[in-house]
Amino acid sequence: MFARIDHIGVAVEDLDAAIKLYEETFGMALVHRETVTEQGVEAVLLDVGENHVELLAPLGPDTPVGKFLAKKGPGIHHVAYQVTDIDATLEQLKAAGMRLIDQAPRTGIRGSRVAFVNPRSAGSVLTEIVEPAAH
Amino acid sequence: MFARIDHIGVAVEDLDAAIKLYEETFGMALVHRETVTEQGVEAVLLDVGENHVELLAPLGPDTPVGKFLAKKGPGIHHVAYQVTDIDATLEQLKAAGMRLIDQAPRTGIRGSRVAFVNPRSAGSVLTEIVEPAAH
Repeated sequence: MFARIDHIGVAVEDLDAAIKLYEETFGMALVHRETVTEQGVEAVLLDVGENHVELLAPLGPDTPVGKFLAKKGPGIHHVAYQVTDIDATLEQLKAAGMRLIDQAPRTGIRGSRVAFVNPRSAGSVLTEIVEPAAH
Repeated sequence: MFARIDHIGVAVEDLDAAIKLYEETFGMALVHRETVTEQGVEAVLLDVGENHVELLAPLGPDTPVGKFLAKKGPGIHHVAYQVTDIDATLEQLKAAGMRLIDQAPRTGIRGSRVAFVNPRSAGSVLTEIVEPAAH
């Protein structure tokens, strides 16, 4: 069902400081930067092999990541698994009785199609499904 | 420096229920099960592409994962990056000023060599470095 871990999403308070850590100390290449207004974040992607780290800074305190930071502080926010056909995967997850935050895919970072599974169905792990944009 | 995400570690209260979710609903193959007494966990590894999910159930309330569960509840516990030479990587991280939980590698799951970076040096993310055992 899942091809690989697409990325881990990390909530950060200071995006530039976090980029410095992951780029300079961990040696990951920064490959994308985008403000995703719909999700209330400024986000960057860094490559680590075929996987990524997604750093997420909130656009304000009332955004999902802003609320996460206020409640839990910075840290790992979610995990995303890569799929080739997100529509089919969502149907499989629904058929298995999983509760979904997104009943249908929406546009994610870098033109991907994404959907989130309700953490209550996934062992309290915020779990995202990602179909990357065709190259 | 890092070849890929080796795994995400997920703290769980009920290991069998979590295995059922990741095996049956998410379609991941269970490839390893081990009690790591030194770390106070019963752990399993599931494959997702070249990455893994590591499910961690504490052996008791006074273990690190037991304390994590009591404080934060189940969820993502750490991320691990794969390296080919953990000794060299640790030297690089020390030279960059990173604080380490493990100054030298110790034995991890499935015969790997592992070391943890202090989350205070890593944006509050518990970050593990893994050199897998030679096959």
